[in-house]
Amino acid sequence: MRPVRVGLLGIGTVGGGTFTVLQRNQEEIRRRAGRGIEITMVADLNTERAKAVVGDAAKVVADAREVIASPDVDVVVELIGGYGIAKALVLEAIAAGKHVVTANKALLAVHGTEIFAAAREKGVMVAFEAAVAGGIPIIKALREGLTANQIQWVAGIINGTTNFILSEMRDKGLDFDVVLKEAQRLGYAEADPTFDIEGVDAAHKATIMSAIAFGVPVQFDKAHVEGITKLSATDIKYAEQLGYRIKLLGIARRQAEGIELRTHPTLVPMRRLIANVEGAMNAVMVQGDAVGTTMYYGKGAGSEPTASAVVADLVDIARQVQAPAASRVPALAFQPDALSSLPILPIEQVVTSFYLRLRVADQTGVLARITSILAEQGISIDAVLQREADEVSGEGGNQTDLIILTHDTKEGAMNTALAAMQSLPTVLAPIVKLRKEELA
Amino acid sequence: MRPVRVGLLGIGTVGGGTFTVLQRNQEEIRRRAGRGIEITMVADLNTERAKAVVGDAAKVVADAREVIASPDVDVVVELIGGYGIAKALVLEAIAAGKHVVTANKALLAVHGTEIFAAAREKGVMVAFEAAVAGGIPIIKALREGLTANQIQWVAGIINGTTNFILSEMRDKGLDFDVVLKEAQRLGYAEADPTFDIEGVDAAHKATIMSAIAFGVPVQFDKAHVEGITKLSATDIKYAEQLGYRIKLLGIARRQAEGIELRTHPTLVPMRRLIANVEGAMNAVMVQGDAVGTTMYYGKGAGSEPTASAVVADLVDIARQVQAPAASRVPALAFQPDALSSLPILPIEQVVTSFYLRLRVADQTGVLARITSILAEQGISIDAVLQREADEVSGEGGNQTDLIILTHDTKEGAMNTALAAMQSLPTVLAPIVKLRKEELA
Repeated sequence: MRPVRVGLLGIGTVGGGTFTVLQRNQEEIRRRAGRGIEITMVADLNTERAKAVVGDAAKVVADAREVIASPDVDVVVELIGGYGIAKALVLEAIAAGKHVVTANKALLAVHGTEIFAAAREKGVMVAFEAAVAGGIPIIKALREGLTANQIQWVAGIINGTTNFILSEMRDKGLDFDVVLKEAQRLGYAEADPTFDIEGVDAAHKATIMSAIAFGVPVQFDKAHVEGITKLSATDIKYAEQLGYRIKLLGIARRQAEGIELRTHPTLVPMRRLIANVEGAMNAVMVQGDAVGTTMYYGKGAGSEPTASAVVADLVDIARQVQAPAASRVPALAFQPDALSSLPILPIEQVVTSFYLRLRVADQTGVLARITSILAEQGISIDAVLQREADEVSGEGGNQTDLIILTHDTKEGAMNTALAAMQSLPTVLAPIVKLRKEELA
Repeated sequence: MRPVRVGLLGIGTVGGGTFTVLQRNQEEIRRRAGRGIEITMVADLNTERAKAVVGDAAKVVADAREVIASPDVDVVVELIGGYGIAKALVLEAIAAGKHVVTANKALLAVHGTEIFAAAREKGVMVAFEAAVAGGIPIIKALREGLTANQIQWVAGIINGTTNFILSEMRDKGLDFDVVLKEAQRLGYAEADPTFDIEGVDAAHKATIMSAIAFGVPVQFDKAHVEGITKLSATDIKYAEQLGYRIKLLGIARRQAEGIELRTHPTLVPMRRLIANVEGAMNAVMVQGDAVGTTMYYGKGAGSEPTASAVVADLVDIARQVQAPAASRVPALAFQPDALSSLPILPIEQVVTSFYLRLRVADQTGVLARITSILAEQGISIDAVLQREADEVSGEGGNQTDLIILTHDTKEGAMNTALAAMQSLPTVLAPIVKLRKEELA
């Protein structure tokens, strides 16, 4: 059988890795796929860099549309990123009848519905293993490996930059700003790290996972997104004393009334494997009603790990390209006409437990007042950690930190309680609220 | 599209789970697969038990051959186990043109070549996700998720019984025999636990993984198999002091000259996630040249976790049944005409590092003599732990334990050195030799 011919749009880090892996392992890949996979064309604005990478092995052009239009390209691999030109090119490739592989989580999380509909219309495949957790085959696990299950929840460390920063903050007791600078120096964080540290990148990936786990459309606009920029070394230390690590998790959870879709710093019990995933590594836990808890671990970024996912998609396409469309795995795991209308829940309806840190006056009755406010909202307490009063007292007498862990409650009830607590004269600073997940 | 019709051979633990999961999640599964999956017939010698499970939902017969011959069955699910009647029935089902799903690792590890050849001949699929690591989709990860890679090694905790026993031995400082009895009482070990504790079950699974990782035929007869029956609490304790946990690992590793295929107790650095996989849980690490290290974790046994894998295979078959054979994923990951002839290496050629425990006379020069024997074989030492001499001295003066960790070496060289050390008059008891893997 003749090789599958691939056109790359963009040959930066991941594109270069894809070229290298396909060259180095071409024999192994052919033995698996039953046919070769060859990059025949590459489009990159920097044609000199592109030529330096591919040599004579592929035609290099500056215009991506030449690749899309070429009769020598069966599959277009989009590695440009972002919502702008990448969206237009992916839609044009589909319109031209090309299969598409993309690592672009932002694009799929925001415009996935339009893109998947266009692909269905044209009978082409859109594959995106590389969009979530790099080389870890988590899309395949969710979409094919766990098809027997009602997925109950998915929770993942799916952004390496923030996990590196959190690991360093904990290891060295340093604050966020200091560690971010170090991460930038080491290349673990970009010059503009906003998408990573504000949780947007993780939320994009969680959005994609929510769709394939629960059979709902991608709805990034309804995701709750919090990053790690406001996290203090103090809370990491207190969490540790209580037996928890703080991780930025992307979470998608099914309730009877809808889907929780949220990304935020989360306390996780130290004894869970995922709490021990350090540095830039990624890990995703998936809970299914039949399989129980499973976890998938590996490198979530980088040239060859991401290329590993891109090439796996190319092999899947090479295998399925001659099969009837009904035989192919649906892009979002569920048949397109069988998506669910379960809504994404507002954050007030999310059910979770909480970590609260209150700066309070060291007076009798303070704890009683606070616990009664929680009780009024039906929130029960799991643990309390009260520090000795500080040596240096503030205005109005001694101050102390009061740490409260709650049991599960609706976030709306917690917010009502928080407002009441915050208005107490004995609560001396803004209350820190973090979410906690047992992941059991 | 009409449902895929399934005949179950055997409705014990896994068969019952398969029936339950298919019933409970039928809607979810149909939304994914695009068609229903229905159990139409069940064969079990205990027809009363079978009827109690399935009620009126499926026809119950005592004779498995009735299921195989039935025109109302598209896929035969073999859950009988063992090499005997199960082999005959699987081959008969294939001959009758039925697709086969099996959880039978023993059968595939020993007779896989014959079975896969027969299936290829008849153009039917043989799927076996449930044969390795229960509900963890590790077969899919190796066969489809990591196709871009030259797999370098696979190492897994793939037997829950032995992992439970090892966890208990370490936690409670108890010896093997005591914990085995407890495991039997709790249902974690069978009345005849031989296949588990002697490493045979793990070796079956490692054999299957070696085939799909490296594209070689299944060759259980060439696997090196050691269980945990001779492991002492003493060595678990010493390993801990040196920063290691002892796990029964099934390992398949590629060398230039061939494939290592071995199952044995293994020292693993405590800081690796896999060292912290406790109780009956399973985990498999896979190292690929592009993706780096990945890990897959979950329940390796039990009714519904195993059923999760059986049903995932049924969905894969439901999707691919109308695709041309060339579009289907090959049973052993590689195209059947592209298997490799790389040999399975004899254990003497395996490269690994070692933990040695020697009972020696507490005399000057003993350590020097032992290290010089190792040096003669080109074996370098990573660490030495010498205990204080025991208070109670044996015949011929004080005795002490000498623990040595080596760097990587060929096992043949180690065995030569061991024979020389064992013959020293100052070595007072049989030397304990365990293998160590850094898994980095």
